[in-house]
Amino acid sequence: NDLNKHKIGPKIHKTTISILEELLKLNDDPRVHGVYLHLPPAALTNRVLNSLKPEKDDSLEGKTVLLVGGESPFRLVLQCLIERRGMVTAKSHWDSKSLEREVRCPHNGIVSVWLISCDVPSDLQISRAQTAKPVNHLAEEIGLLPEELEVYGRSKAKVRLSLLERLNSQPDGKYVLVAGVTPTPLGEGKSTVTIGLVQALSAHLNLNSFACLRQPSQGPTFGIKAANNLVAAAIDARMLHEATQSDKALFSRLVPSVNGVRRFSPIQISRLRRLGIIKSDPSSLSPEEVNSFVRLDLDPEKITWHRVVDTNDRFLRKITIGQASTEKGLTRETGFDIAVASEIMAILALADSMEDMKSRLGRMVVGTSRSGTPVTAEDLGVSGALAVLMKDAIKPTLMQTLEGTPVFVHAGPFANIAHGNSSVLADKLALKLVGEDGFVVTEAGFGADIGMEKFFNIKCRASGLRPNAVVLVATIRALKMHGGGPSVSAGAPLPTEYISENLNLVSGGCQSNLKKQIQNAQQFGVPVVVAINVFRTDTPAEIDLVCQLAKECGAFDAVPCHHWMQGGRGAVELAQAVKEATSKPSYFQFLYDLQMPIVEKIRTIAKRIYGADDIDVSAEAQRKIDYYHEQQGYSTLPICMAKTHLSLSHLPERKGAPTGFVLPIRDVRASVGAGFIYPLVGTMSTMPGLPTRACFYDIDIDPITEEISGLF
Amino acid sequence: NDLNKHKIGPKIHKTTISILEELLKLNDDPRVHGVYLHLPPAALTNRVLNSLKPEKDDSLEGKTVLLVGGESPFRLVLQCLIERRGMVTAKSHWDSKSLEREVRCPHNGIVSVWLISCDVPSDLQISRAQTAKPVNHLAEEIGLLPEELEVYGRSKAKVRLSLLERLNSQPDGKYVLVAGVTPTPLGEGKSTVTIGLVQALSAHLNLNSFACLRQPSQGPTFGIKAANNLVAAAIDARMLHEATQSDKALFSRLVPSVNGVRRFSPIQISRLRRLGIIKSDPSSLSPEEVNSFVRLDLDPEKITWHRVVDTNDRFLRKITIGQASTEKGLTRETGFDIAVASEIMAILALADSMEDMKSRLGRMVVGTSRSGTPVTAEDLGVSGALAVLMKDAIKPTLMQTLEGTPVFVHAGPFANIAHGNSSVLADKLALKLVGEDGFVVTEAGFGADIGMEKFFNIKCRASGLRPNAVVLVATIRALKMHGGGPSVSAGAPLPTEYISENLNLVSGGCQSNLKKQIQNAQQFGVPVVVAINVFRTDTPAEIDLVCQLAKECGAFDAVPCHHWMQGGRGAVELAQAVKEATSKPSYFQFLYDLQMPIVEKIRTIAKRIYGADDIDVSAEAQRKIDYYHEQQGYSTLPICMAKTHLSLSHLPERKGAPTGFVLPIRDVRASVGAGFIYPLVGTMSTMPGLPTRACFYDIDIDPITEEISGLF
Repeated sequence: NDLNKHKIGPKIHKTTISILEELLKLNDDPRVHGVYLHLPPAALTNRVLNSLKPEKDDSLEGKTVLLVGGESPFRLVLQCLIERRGMVTAKSHWDSKSLEREVRCPHNGIVSVWLISCDVPSDLQISRAQTAKPVNHLAEEIGLLPEELEVYGRSKAKVRLSLLERLNSQPDGKYVLVAGVTPTPLGEGKSTVTIGLVQALSAHLNLNSFACLRQPSQGPTFGIKAANNLVAAAIDARMLHEATQSDKALFSRLVPSVNGVRRFSPIQISRLRRLGIIKSDPSSLSPEEVNSFVRLDLDPEKITWHRVVDTNDRFLRKITIGQASTEKGLTRETGFDIAVASEIMAILALADSMEDMKSRLGRMVVGTSRSGTPVTAEDLGVSGALAVLMKDAIKPTLMQTLEGTPVFVHAGPFANIAHGNSSVLADKLALKLVGEDGFVVTEAGFGADIGMEKFFNIKCRASGLRPNAVVLVATIRALKMHGGGPSVSAGAPLPTEYISENLNLVSGGCQSNLKKQIQNAQQFGVPVVVAINVFRTDTPAEIDLVCQLAKECGAFDAVPCHHWMQGGRGAVELAQAVKEATSKPSYFQFLYDLQMPIVEKIRTIAKRIYGADDIDVSAEAQRKIDYYHEQQGYSTLPICMAKTHLSLSHLPERKGAPTGFVLPIRDVRASVGAGFIYPLVGTMSTMPGLPTRACFYDIDIDPITEEISGLF
Repeated sequence: NDLNKHKIGPKIHKTTISILEELLKLNDDPRVHGVYLHLPPAALTNRVLNSLKPEKDDSLEGKTVLLVGGESPFRLVLQCLIERRGMVTAKSHWDSKSLEREVRCPHNGIVSVWLISCDVPSDLQISRAQTAKPVNHLAEEIGLLPEELEVYGRSKAKVRLSLLERLNSQPDGKYVLVAGVTPTPLGEGKSTVTIGLVQALSAHLNLNSFACLRQPSQGPTFGIKAANNLVAAAIDARMLHEATQSDKALFSRLVPSVNGVRRFSPIQISRLRRLGIIKSDPSSLSPEEVNSFVRLDLDPEKITWHRVVDTNDRFLRKITIGQASTEKGLTRETGFDIAVASEIMAILALADSMEDMKSRLGRMVVGTSRSGTPVTAEDLGVSGALAVLMKDAIKPTLMQTLEGTPVFVHAGPFANIAHGNSSVLADKLALKLVGEDGFVVTEAGFGADIGMEKFFNIKCRASGLRPNAVVLVATIRALKMHGGGPSVSAGAPLPTEYISENLNLVSGGCQSNLKKQIQNAQQFGVPVVVAINVFRTDTPAEIDLVCQLAKECGAFDAVPCHHWMQGGRGAVELAQAVKEATSKPSYFQFLYDLQMPIVEKIRTIAKRIYGADDIDVSAEAQRKIDYYHEQQGYSTLPICMAKTHLSLSHLPERKGAPTGFVLPIRDVRASVGAGFIYPLVGTMSTMPGLPTRACFYDIDIDPITEEISGLF
């Protein structure tokens, strides 16, 4: 599953840079008005201090070089250096706070943050060594008005949707999707490529760009949890009230007399209309109409709505609720999912306005009545309250990369039972903000057969946006595994095939999985740039081979990337290839028409994207498909396959590009609010567990400095 | 229970004010530099427009009067008026945004917001009609440095605890507690008195003051939910892992070899020390030591930790978990509480630093082992992670009243199974910020017998702070009920006794409940000011009678308050009485010594505060008390009674000041992290339910304006 993905931050600037070389380069760059050296204590070795000696960098005249950081023994050394250099005007300025404020550059300049270290620092060290610019500065740089921003803390802000209206006539930028080959346990690095690419575009090629990422599962999803669990509480409370009250009692409570007047609420009027009752005076309803209005008559066996929690709590996978005596014996079996698996998360990611989100929330089906009618959140009366709970969540969160380029972090739906892409709204806002010549880079979960296919067929259909290019991320290691390399297991040392040159395995992976995934993108008419996320053990011959074979397989271009080591600088070649690819016309088309029967849509994906010979629909799945066919509007929904991400087939162990298999469709479900049908190919876990030694053993916080340890 | 309390906002400015009279008064007030008229559309009746006519208020020269608001037909009229008056310099200023910005007054001036309305506006209308000043302006006014503030949105900010250090040598202000007579279903209004009082002190008497309130249950508690449920997930996962693995397997997983090195984490070292094992090399542990280290051996029958959720979800009161096959048959019965009932909430409210919170979180007892040893959160290894999840929650949230005076909203523990008071940290920060001559007004949940008693014996003990005065809130209606008035039921019209003069009933309530609660405060050596929260139907004779009798019963003073109608102006008399009361020396003392046996502490509260003849301790309660007596540090904890708030006795129907009863102690529990023993007097519900027609039916949001309806 795709959960851990969310926890991996960008890994940038891992290289040991020659400070002198870098400073000289920056000195020649007319766009750079100042250089801000942030030196973590560990970086202040003799070697580094020597290279800072004034006599060695006379050429730096004209640039203000500020030095900040280091702990007491080093502070003194640095202070002396600064005084001798006259780099700061007054000694009293030696205070990191005031320096940080001064260091803000002229409006369009670049503040470069260079880390100097002799060891490879951890992600946490890198992150701490950087001082993020205040989010309101970032917002100003990218053209947001103060009233379009809602600042949360120092480095995050929600962006109001009114921006879309203001920039309505602004042409969109280029729209680039980052997808991957079929994932392996070794990790491919789609998120780091996404970040490296926008850093290269913005900070190195001087092109406006925006990254749009999925949000992590703990924390910012709280509106979703509250909304999801309100629906659940409303379901069970309603069943209790219906079981213990007469029609008349229910009606008089649901439509109470307030100061002598009885009135339906707007949400109740909507339910009446769905029931075909065109009346608005409560007293005019016939007893039969009252009965159908007050009784949802939910079938306890057919409630599909689960509660959610944000913790990996495996004991909540299957539970029995209602066992207190106050619930009068109305027990039933149900379960909790992890919060990101909620349909509300999928809705958040697909809605293109508050209004759209609200109506999707109202359409969510929570179960069926005993007579087989779908019961919706609006039938429960909660749709308005859900929209209120989600009113802040719908605004994308603005953050920044290590190099100060803008990022939207927004929505993180599951990539199996949902579509695994960040939000439509974040992409739309970003496309307006970057302008016609800019770039928005967004990422799809899992391999291209899942995340990319859903990006095109579900997300692009919902948004109306059309992609200009796909970046397909591959690693030498993953290609070797797809080419027939041995399996790996957590904790055990990597087999030698993965850490020494093996052109045979590389070639096998390119000719199978990489080739198929390139072709998958091409079926949608979108050019593909293959990005090789380079590891230290990869050899030049291996990298060259992938570049050559990828192009032979139809890629527009294929380039190695070194962003993990070097940040944006390491992804400049990729950025140039992407720029080139998007300058060509693209001929986007959907894979299937929505009017096709449900079974045909499933078959199309299985055969054309996965390479299956056919599909095998179980009786249960066929029964559901027939039921959905009868329900208005269900049969024209797009398909969201719930399949393992570890193989193009349904069998995780079959790497490469398997053929000769028939894809089993075990069951079929619907997320009517989100707007898709999801066929289940195998069992999908929607609640992870905790291992014996969970990572919480290492997590701690320093009560004084508030520094957190143990995260990476 | 005390939940709904949290949902009631301050009710201020409900009166129909003669605009002219008010403007003239303000004109004479040298502290007022400008008047900001905010006119909601509904207010723009002919009567109001007439009184705005220039010829009627010539005396307003010298003040800038700005008019903002109203919808199109009225805008024109107002604009004409403004132009004729020359009240704004340029016509182009007619734009609510720019006016709002201009209207900020010279630094110490008061911006008065006057609402003009012919009907009584709803709380929501009032709240919308006000434009809050940006929270960073407020922060500057009260003396916070920018780096001490973490802004969340436009009107809320977290305040960093480093402030305490900076203002370390600053003397504290006066510390005032708002408590109430024994609550009735009619509502007494402690929160509105708290707000009215600080508005009167700050905006009308020009004294620094701060209100400290409890936080509502939906939303800001998300750190608590996450932390609480992480503990729960860790408990069940641990039991599963212990049930399915050998000592050796557990040990090698709990203390894994990383790059060939095995090391205990600091959290594991703490557990070893508690077990009396003074070793730090994992390989040096004997098999017996490994066994005791790896096995918490939790008794599934004796796990006291519950999961929490933020929704009133009654079907989670009692559930069976672990029914999925992956959990291998380890099912058990447990339940969910509402989030605010978590011990973590009580800890948040009592901690006086990050360090203190962290060690309290580690001490929380989640259950006992089969051999009867308490098992703590630190034994589970989660204590550091819990502190990380709570790192933002521990910072008090700065907000403001309608009159722009500062408020801390922080922590909202239950008032029955916990102590029902807002946080120690908010009070401490506020006391420093107001300075020696300033006032901090904080509120205790339920009646004075519960909230105030716990404020003194638990919260003041934890904080070391000493109160200067108690404001005891009473209403004529509540006193009538305590004096023998008939019972009332929701929805039914109020009996005539409550809406027409009845001096007998008033007198009865004063001589019983009011008198006893005044005496309760006096037992702690703190002066009491009785605040009568005046309702429209109260007669002058009734109000006078309460004032007279309260003083006869020992109150320092007793005054009527009209803040609900008039805002701070209506509480000026109360503010003056409080100022007077706090100028006298106070002789605070605790009710009991911590060294007393647990039973004696309970008996002391029952007899001296509730007026019981004695207590009756059940066998189960006695067994627990004996067990706690054996556990180190448990027997010296203070007592947190879990008793009904509807009577001084344990019988909700006994109003006034009951005598001749013996208080039954059904069971006794401990919140070791929060630091109190809580005896159960009756059954306490920790999970409310949803009614047939929950308020969500009326809640909705306008997708364009984001205006929420249906809240009040």
